[in-house]
Amino acid sequence: MDLKQFITIVPDWPQEGVVFKDITTLMDNGEAYRYATDQIVQYAKEKEVDIIVGPEARGFIIGCPVSYALSLGFAPVRKEGKLPRETIKADYGKEYGKDKLTIHKDAIKPGQRVLITDDLLATGGTILATIELVEKLGGIVVGIAFLIELSYLNGREKLDGYDILSLMTF
Amino acid sequence: MDLKQFITIVPDWPQEGVVFKDITTLMDNGEAYRYATDQIVQYAKEKEVDIIVGPEARGFIIGCPVSYALSLGFAPVRKEGKLPRETIKADYGKEYGKDKLTIHKDAIKPGQRVLITDDLLATGGTILATIELVEKLGGIVVGIAFLIELSYLNGREKLDGYDILSLMTF
Repeated sequence: MDLKQFITIVPDWPQEGVVFKDITTLMDNGEAYRYATDQIVQYAKEKEVDIIVGPEARGFIIGCPVSYALSLGFAPVRKEGKLPRETIKADYGKEYGKDKLTIHKDAIKPGQRVLITDDLLATGGTILATIELVEKLGGIVVGIAFLIELSYLNGREKLDGYDILSLMTF
Repeated sequence: MDLKQFITIVPDWPQEGVVFKDITTLMDNGEAYRYATDQIVQYAKEKEVDIIVGPEARGFIIGCPVSYALSLGFAPVRKEGKLPRETIKADYGKEYGKDKLTIHKDAIKPGQRVLITDDLLATGGTILATIELVEKLGGIVVGIAFLIELSYLNGREKLDGYDILSLMTF
């Protein structure tokens, strides 16, 4: 299945000059959304993953169905102040200043094999912070899966040494 | 399976006097998360649902695996400014002032049978706004599924006339 046909190109969003890749038209198509998810399920099987981790909110869209398919847990990574119990934090660079991502301290057990999921690999900032959180808890990042990779932003270079699956490259 | 054993009770969060029900410990357990999702999958089958709709971010956690299981589309409802194409909006009451939820104008086709998913039925404000969005687009809300219902907040009364499934009641 050519997944790119389900992606909508939105020029100048969220700001002028950015060509946004909208995944909601892929998700709106049940067969395409299932097909895309199944590629990541297969990848998770090969990597013998124990648990899925994804940053809010689009990381949930990708990772939660993979958890379901494999009866694996899902640990959400959220912005500061959103998780109710004891968390650890990591900074991630945003365009306008710094922001923090958090994960519950008990979300991952030391030695667990972790798959990180997100919709998009752009500059890699969110994923680097997510890796930091997983590794601080003793998890082993055995794979990182994206629907889309924006190869011209070179996010992959920042993730050197990690195994990456991206279903579409622009 | 007694799902309540996987919910963590967090006193005084996000503010004093609130007894928060944390679902992340349920999601962290792959068997429990799968079992809970399968109850909603079964409900969606009975209701002959065409598409799933969920408000960010926890509505994704519940609805996206249901979409996957049934090869159905998922239409995200997000806060204003998060969806890249033409949207319609609905107000929803928050404690400190008003906020808007949005959905893409083409997310639902008229006549589609819609299941709305969220983690928690509290006062019902988010779900009322979500219903408004779905119905504005011509969708038929055939069911609303929650992991948890806080019955003492009487959200169910606000949703009179709609079919509701809640897997746990506190």
